Amino acid sequence: MFIKQLEQRQIKANSLLCVGLDPQAAKINTLQLSLIDWLCAIVDATAEHACAFKPQIAHFSALAAEQQLTDIITYIHQNHPGIPVILDSKRGDIGSTAERYAEEAFVRYQADALTVNPYLGGDTLTPYSQYTDKGVVILCKTSNQQSGQLQDLVLQSGQPLYLRVAQLAAEQWNNNNNVMLVVGATYPQQLQAIREQVGDMPLLIPGIGAQGGDLAATLKAGLLKNGLGLIISASRSIIYAGGDMDFAKQAGLAAKQLKTEINQIRVQI
Amino acid sequence: MFIKQLEQRQIKANSLLCVGLDPQAAKINTLQLSLIDWLCAIVDATAEHACAFKPQIAHFSALAAEQQLTDIITYIHQNHPGIPVILDSKRGDIGSTAERYAEEAFVRYQADALTVNPYLGGDTLTPYSQYTDKGVVILCKTSNQQSGQLQDLVLQSGQPLYLRVAQLAAEQWNNNNNVMLVVGATYPQQLQAIREQVGDMPLLIPGIGAQGGDLAATLKAGLLKNGLGLIISASRSIIYAGGDMDFAKQAGLAAKQLKTEINQIRVQI
Repeated sequence: MFIKQLEQRQIKANSLLCVGLDPQAAKINTLQLSLIDWLCAIVDATAEHACAFKPQIAHFSALAAEQQLTDIITYIHQNHPGIPVILDSKRGDIGSTAERYAEEAFVRYQADALTVNPYLGGDTLTPYSQYTDKGVVILCKTSNQQSGQLQDLVLQSGQPLYLRVAQLAAEQWNNNNNVMLVVGATYPQQLQAIREQVGDMPLLIPGIGAQGGDLAATLKAGLLKNGLGLIISASRSIIYAGGDMDFAKQAGLAAKQLKTEINQIRVQI
Repeated sequence: MFIKQLEQRQIKANSLLCVGLDPQAAKINTLQLSLIDWLCAIVDATAEHACAFKPQIAHFSALAAEQQLTDIITYIHQNHPGIPVILDSKRGDIGSTAERYAEEAFVRYQADALTVNPYLGGDTLTPYSQYTDKGVVILCKTSNQQSGQLQDLVLQSGQPLYLRVAQLAAEQWNNNNNVMLVVGATYPQQLQAIREQVGDMPLLIPGIGAQGGDLAATLKAGLLKNGLGLIISASRSIIYAGGDMDFAKQAGLAAKQLKTEINQIRVQI
């Protein structure tokens, strides 16, 4: 069960921090390191502070780095067991094709969860959620500036579209108790409305760090009474914290700092 | 310009048929052929009837067949120049990541167009449409059974969500005149409403063949007066028309038959 695995790790590491792995060739090349060596160094330096790792697949695909994506996920499973890997792929296609995407994430890459897009409807999400031991993280309210162009549209019922997605996720799409939602830290008000809609469903929160999301407002809006329920994801602000040969040490310090910052606010809520 | 390239091919081949390339290992293995040999044979057998080829990337990713995807697109460009390749990837992510997906499709794979998902909003589509010589095909009304769960939701304005997407595509997202829409053949009424919304924008139509879409109703609802404006895509019904060693011949015959069927209806409209 993904959600149980995640919560166990969050408690054990005392951390809600998810470290995003978005390799950029230009930044890594200046270090004269191979991609896999860079990835392993970042993972080793940040693991003790991480409740999850989140490789973003586009950053690997653009570099033709499928082998390195395979290798780093294997490396995490072998060297840091208990830390789940969320493959950030935001897939979305009709059923017969969604089955192939599920194979890509869960069989080929051995990810523990993946992100998906709800625009095609519930029958296109079942191929992922039927992997009952895996997690399915559905886009709800994304962190980008124009996310409201569709997501904030108000329906005849008076409900904005993103809340309808949250409702469908909680009431219709979660038969296997492995569904979660993506909600950007840049929209704490919407996060609060989503939290009220979905009960204790875990929420993956991008947008902290480089994207400028509000950490305190996010925790206040989304944290559960047990201090869990949120996966706070940061990528660039951690993995590129240092640009020199001490990049791994700087990444570890940045992860520790953000974890600590989250925990300091967390105990006050 | 992708749309001009597409129309030139449609006129030259007298065909609106797009051949979808969805390799399934189980079916190809029984032929004792390598994946690339199978792909080349299918492409050669169907090319004269095709206005475009549409490889579906999940079917390659699940097989770890990135090299074969690269090779078949190169093969099409070299051996069947003038036939555009639409990479069916349905990508959707925030701007900095969308740039990587655009690189994947247009730089790594040298596709002429790709399919994308609109749920994240217009700022996430610009990274694709800024490749002004490439095409961007945005999901509007998809062919699957539950596509209406989100796409048919009625907004306060009285407009269903899919029509709002069509309107945004026509009025706000098409600054470079390279935007198209995906509309499933399984929903001809919605197709007609979309056609009225978007003028002469080309529409990619999946759902004919294995999915059971209505060809005559589709053409009636979506065809432009010049006999163009639609890309009718079929995959399984063509590429798996024959299961034996005459698979390529059977695929060619199925492509010819569907092209002809389309053209017979087309001249009556």
